[in-house]
Amino acid sequence: MRASKQLIPTLKETPQDAAIVSHQLMLRAGLIRQLASGLYTWLPMGLKVLKKVENVVREEMDRAGALETLMPSAQPAELWQESGRWEQFGPELLRFQDRHARDFCLGPTHEEVITDIARNEIKSYKQLPMNLYQIQQKFRDERRPRFGIMRSREFLMKDAYSFNRDADCLADSYQVMYDAYVRVFDRLGLRYRAVDADSGSIGGSRSQEFHVLADSGEDAIAVSTVSQYAANIEAAEALPRESERPAPGAAMTRKPTPNTKTIDALVQGFDVAIEKTLKTLIVEGAEDGTLVALVVRGDHSLNEVKAEKLPEVASPLRMADDAQVRSVIGAGFGSLGPVNMPLLTLVDRSAALVSDFCAGANVEGEHYFDINWGRDLPEPEVRDLREVVAGDPSPDGQGTLEITRGIEVGHIFQLGTKYSEAMNCNMLDQNGKAKPMHMGCYGIGVSRVVAAAIEQNHDARGILWPAAIAPYQVCIVPIGGKKDPAVNDTAEALYQSLKDQGVEVLLDDRDMGPGPRFADMDLLGIPHRVVISSKGLAAGQLEYKHRSNPDSEMLDEASIMDRLGA
Amino acid sequence: MRASKQLIPTLKETPQDAAIVSHQLMLRAGLIRQLASGLYTWLPMGLKVLKKVENVVREEMDRAGALETLMPSAQPAELWQESGRWEQFGPELLRFQDRHARDFCLGPTHEEVITDIARNEIKSYKQLPMNLYQIQQKFRDERRPRFGIMRSREFLMKDAYSFNRDADCLADSYQVMYDAYVRVFDRLGLRYRAVDADSGSIGGSRSQEFHVLADSGEDAIAVSTVSQYAANIEAAEALPRESERPAPGAAMTRKPTPNTKTIDALVQGFDVAIEKTLKTLIVEGAEDGTLVALVVRGDHSLNEVKAEKLPEVASPLRMADDAQVRSVIGAGFGSLGPVNMPLLTLVDRSAALVSDFCAGANVEGEHYFDINWGRDLPEPEVRDLREVVAGDPSPDGQGTLEITRGIEVGHIFQLGTKYSEAMNCNMLDQNGKAKPMHMGCYGIGVSRVVAAAIEQNHDARGILWPAAIAPYQVCIVPIGGKKDPAVNDTAEALYQSLKDQGVEVLLDDRDMGPGPRFADMDLLGIPHRVVISSKGLAAGQLEYKHRSNPDSEMLDEASIMDRLGA
Repeated sequence: MRASKQLIPTLKETPQDAAIVSHQLMLRAGLIRQLASGLYTWLPMGLKVLKKVENVVREEMDRAGALETLMPSAQPAELWQESGRWEQFGPELLRFQDRHARDFCLGPTHEEVITDIARNEIKSYKQLPMNLYQIQQKFRDERRPRFGIMRSREFLMKDAYSFNRDADCLADSYQVMYDAYVRVFDRLGLRYRAVDADSGSIGGSRSQEFHVLADSGEDAIAVSTVSQYAANIEAAEALPRESERPAPGAAMTRKPTPNTKTIDALVQGFDVAIEKTLKTLIVEGAEDGTLVALVVRGDHSLNEVKAEKLPEVASPLRMADDAQVRSVIGAGFGSLGPVNMPLLTLVDRSAALVSDFCAGANVEGEHYFDINWGRDLPEPEVRDLREVVAGDPSPDGQGTLEITRGIEVGHIFQLGTKYSEAMNCNMLDQNGKAKPMHMGCYGIGVSRVVAAAIEQNHDARGILWPAAIAPYQVCIVPIGGKKDPAVNDTAEALYQSLKDQGVEVLLDDRDMGPGPRFADMDLLGIPHRVVISSKGLAAGQLEYKHRSNPDSEMLDEASIMDRLGA
Repeated sequence: MRASKQLIPTLKETPQDAAIVSHQLMLRAGLIRQLASGLYTWLPMGLKVLKKVENVVREEMDRAGALETLMPSAQPAELWQESGRWEQFGPELLRFQDRHARDFCLGPTHEEVITDIARNEIKSYKQLPMNLYQIQQKFRDERRPRFGIMRSREFLMKDAYSFNRDADCLADSYQVMYDAYVRVFDRLGLRYRAVDADSGSIGGSRSQEFHVLADSGEDAIAVSTVSQYAANIEAAEALPRESERPAPGAAMTRKPTPNTKTIDALVQGFDVAIEKTLKTLIVEGAEDGTLVALVVRGDHSLNEVKAEKLPEVASPLRMADDAQVRSVIGAGFGSLGPVNMPLLTLVDRSAALVSDFCAGANVEGEHYFDINWGRDLPEPEVRDLREVVAGDPSPDGQGTLEITRGIEVGHIFQLGTKYSEAMNCNMLDQNGKAKPMHMGCYGIGVSRVVAAAIEQNHDARGILWPAAIAPYQVCIVPIGGKKDPAVNDTAEALYQSLKDQGVEVLLDDRDMGPGPRFADMDLLGIPHRVVISSKGLAAGQLEYKHRSNPDSEMLDEASIMDRLGA
């Protein structure tokens, strides 16, 4: 492609309303333009990238045996009423009426439609497992669309749905999709992790998110320093660093600790190591009117997602207020502790391995020092309560955890029979008996991958595309062609030769100075750049530079071809 | 692909609500399923066909230098108010409000959005011509969706928009698209015509429709028996078959013709050749309160589209009623004619070449016979007024016309400056002066092409896909594999060999008898079928049959490969 025939509306200034780097660079490089809040047009250079991501996703879905379909965007309300989601879904679900005043929505996902198809078209267990997918524009009416295509209202998504004979069959299908996702993100050339996710309200027995790693990511992820283990910080199991509790030392004492309402104040005022302090949080219990005490080390934080999953604790989590606490314990926040605690007390694994520790005395303005489990109070009721921190042991036993950030671009779920039971999606089993199919669902935010790739791969001058998704692999920039016809002739010959070899090449023949053209090519992130000038030609050389390399080299044409892999 | 792993939900019975053969066969072959009125899911086998059409269209657009983009489906009302279409468009435009009560529509086309992009991103005439296109689901809220995907509410469309320096530049871009469309439909293997269309209310100076020829087509088309000439019946120029008017014969006479209100009655009652009769229609004139007489031969029909384009005639066309006619002429329908006609009288070209003709006398119950132009009444004011009929000379001077039927699958327009003037879409010209860009728009109904291909190519057993869009090129049907392992081994080996050669092959390994499998493969329209049986193998042969050929042949494997082009 000649740049003069391409639409490359680059911007010098960073648009003011673009808060994150991918949004800024996509606007500056002319990949997208906003039509209305959360609605973007993909301009030609942007769409080339999007299509490359889409094609990799499609190829790997096909390779995994999934069957491509295309469902309507507009979905009748009746199906959503059957699944219950018409009422459950909030205003993100864009609802409308057609000219006959029938209710429809624009699909944010297609569980209902695909389940309707499966119940009508799949009869027997012999046809299963079957995985049906589509790659399609989806709509979510976000309250506050932002970050460009990262959180837009219309976006391109691959959604796959597997139908399975039973839970084992579902687990196999899930693994096939997991492997396909690994191939997709490997091929895209992105650094990513498959992250154990809290499957939360979606239900089902297993769920993993695929995150592109980037400092700007919305989500904190705990990853092993040595293995592939990765989990959402909410879902990561917090193992103690200690294997056993040290033997008790000095006898427990109780001291007045006036004006010591925080762990910091305790540490500073009484020369206690923070690892030797415990803090006690009071939450409402699962049974109405009850309270539960949760104990973690002073340097740790309660993980609220873990807490609200405890059968003893109310869900969603509700912290007790000062009045509730005082009426039951007789002391308020800042003076609480496990000794003489009248409430059910659940203790984090790490807190349970501390000896000679310090905690509130449940008497206003007093603390106990040198407390020891099993000596000064009963052995603790142990739970996993805290958030992991960097340096914790990896739950898979390999290495330690570090905390990194990621952008969620994929999600795989074992849905089980949630939709198939609600919508009577049955198969006949080996005995001719109707049984609900077991379903999995598997999404990739195709347009989001483009933004995530930029968040992970950019520098001050612009984008650094991984080769697999660069809009062009090579750009040729001729300099001084007006004065020296040999420059343009060489550029043309190289351009034709690369095109003939199937290389995606952009000849920057625009009537602009070299500086602005170099800046555009850097902004656009074309991996390989070849500059052709009179001076170089005089020495029989062209200038080669890789986008990720600060330095260029003067090379003869054969060596250039070598660099381009052509 | 193994048929056992594919979703092939064929139906034996013709669904009752499917009125046309493409709808029936697409349902029966399991290509589509209805989700709601006018909303269809493309099942895997159907989507394979749709994708093939889409890919041919994309390749030819790219080859023609058009740049692919992707615009949002949801469009803000403001743009449509700017162009005036928010008010003009009827209830086919699906309108909705987002959660902030802002008005949007789901785009049936994207003139406004692309014009907004062009006015923002294209600055100079030097960037033109530029052609931007997309392939995208479109929405039209049809009052009565019918004929399956032929007239559905969501459909896949390729819409391209060219921006040009001036009218000449637009004409060149239009020709480039015309040539691309010819390549598209040639490659798809369809019999089609580019048809001169009445551009009607869309305006612009030129417009052609691409029609797939099929007896079931909605539109009548006049085509030359020898050249590529084709036109909508409304737009086809009606040339007389006679080159000159014969000399007058007998003198004009006036006779009573009681109960003779129709041409048929005149022909039968008075032994006149119908080609020697003229009929006179009275329509309202362009000036308020005036009437105009239009005269065509008795065996011809007035073409209303031509009539309402006459500057002398009101548009839209309004026929005068009996009272109006009587008050001005003194006689009513059935007794009208050009002799002594008090109104402006416009005469069709063929009617102007008749001599010795018969027509009403403008006296109730009387006709003139042996009338001659220039003798008995003034020479006629000649216009092109009638509909063409089979046997008329082709307007391009090559051959004669025949009337055939077509399904409109593409349309190319020279829009001119309609949108660019309404929306201030300007470029700077050579003198640095702002001028409106000249626009063209070019659509292909991608999903409609699939239905049209079936309307054109089917038989009693099912679809006969052109090779370019068949879901698979070859199917292999092993028979008796349970008893004879050699059957399955041979089938597997052939399947692998064809796959390895890149042939799209479907191995029908389903646990069904041969009859139902043959019926499915015929219904699905797979071009090549290879049957493998014990008996054939014993003779070292396989059975080959082309879908369009009633007979099969027993061939050795090398000859089979030859037939498959593998």
